[in-house]
Amino acid sequence: MINCILASTSTIHNSSYLEYLFNELKELFRNTDEVLFIPYARPSGISHEEYTTIAKKGFQKINKKLIGVHTFDDPIKAINNAKGIFTGGGNTFVLVAKLYELQLINPLRKKILEGTPYLGTSAGSNIAGVSMKTTNDMPIVYPPSFTTLHITPFNINAHYLDPDPKSTHKGETRETRIKEFHQFNKTPVIGLREGSWIRLKNNQCILEGKELSARIFEQNKEPVEVPPNTSLLYLK
Amino acid sequence: MINCILASTSTIHNSSYLEYLFNELKELFRNTDEVLFIPYARPSGISHEEYTTIAKKGFQKINKKLIGVHTFDDPIKAINNAKGIFTGGGNTFVLVAKLYELQLINPLRKKILEGTPYLGTSAGSNIAGVSMKTTNDMPIVYPPSFTTLHITPFNINAHYLDPDPKSTHKGETRETRIKEFHQFNKTPVIGLREGSWIRLKNNQCILEGKELSARIFEQNKEPVEVPPNTSLLYLK
Repeated sequence: MINCILASTSTIHNSSYLEYLFNELKELFRNTDEVLFIPYARPSGISHEEYTTIAKKGFQKINKKLIGVHTFDDPIKAINNAKGIFTGGGNTFVLVAKLYELQLINPLRKKILEGTPYLGTSAGSNIAGVSMKTTNDMPIVYPPSFTTLHITPFNINAHYLDPDPKSTHKGETRETRIKEFHQFNKTPVIGLREGSWIRLKNNQCILEGKELSARIFEQNKEPVEVPPNTSLLYLK
Repeated sequence: MINCILASTSTIHNSSYLEYLFNELKELFRNTDEVLFIPYARPSGISHEEYTTIAKKGFQKINKKLIGVHTFDDPIKAINNAKGIFTGGGNTFVLVAKLYELQLINPLRKKILEGTPYLGTSAGSNIAGVSMKTTNDMPIVYPPSFTTLHITPFNINAHYLDPDPKSTHKGETRETRIKEFHQFNKTPVIGLREGSWIRLKNNQCILEGKELSARIFEQNKEPVEVPPNTSLLYLK
């Protein structure tokens, strides 16, 4: 039974790293004191070790020990043995390229489907979707595929941003980009605002978070806003 | 002798399609009445035909006939025979995937290197760089490679946007993304603001446009602003 939190962001404005999720994380990881950290998304290009140090400090506040998967000689075995897993945000292309390089896609998918508690933030949430084709990240490395873990039947667009009505900029809005995605792909997309997360547990899939709606994009339909506590199981 | 205009955007605020470039385009395409249009970037997912209709209207205002490459049975031949070429903006992934699918990368590169006048806007400028790894676009389709035409020894970041100091949003700024690119790649990047373009002509490579500086990113260096009329030949 899948047991995941897929969050739009690790950090919200005026709050420390993961702080807004501490209560959720205590519950998610209640059966383990040790969580395996996947630092491969390397935000701002920092090293695996630097990133793990940052994430460790967050998890210390809920009395959990975090161990970077990069410290194991055999990362597949590390994933197979994990009692809890956290994939942090950063660049989704860098993350996915590394997961393919180390052949971790299938072991990670299997572990999550078996019910190992999993936290994803930003890029770590993107990879739970059908593909990484709705990431906002810059394609700074070339992964062997855009196919990801397919834990959810939809894709997530993390850090979802509403169009700025005052903008004179001609670059595409997020909504325009996701509509372009649906010219080429059928997968529903959840525009997940910072402070929202998706909770998969007991065969449920619920939008949670601090009073924010999410924007749901389905092919050939007008996007709709859904409030917190909405079940997302209808999206396929 | 390369003869190109690589523009950040087709359209600036309070101006019609390509209008701010009309004088430049009259000069660029002065030796031909017919320009071949490459509509494969499909902005907002519109069809090749719809896109060509839009671009045609712009070119009518400078008395040039635009013909969509998609209307030819043999697009390689159409490129080989072109007296002028314009690649419009849209989604760079969609554009590059189609250029590879139709095996147009090498013919297009060859034509431009031979001196055929070329206009690129947005995605059409991105592809003139070493790779498409500094596009802002969403990876809605999977191209067989991120390698592009390599007309310039640098990459372009079109629609370059400065960080908003008032923002509380946690998504990466454009500058952060380009700095991440340089953790993995050596290619210099030109952050080209809307209203700026790069003019390649007579073995020169000059930043042009309406009084805007461009932001130059080189690996292991602090980014710098360069004013219009700066030669960009030093970037390798």
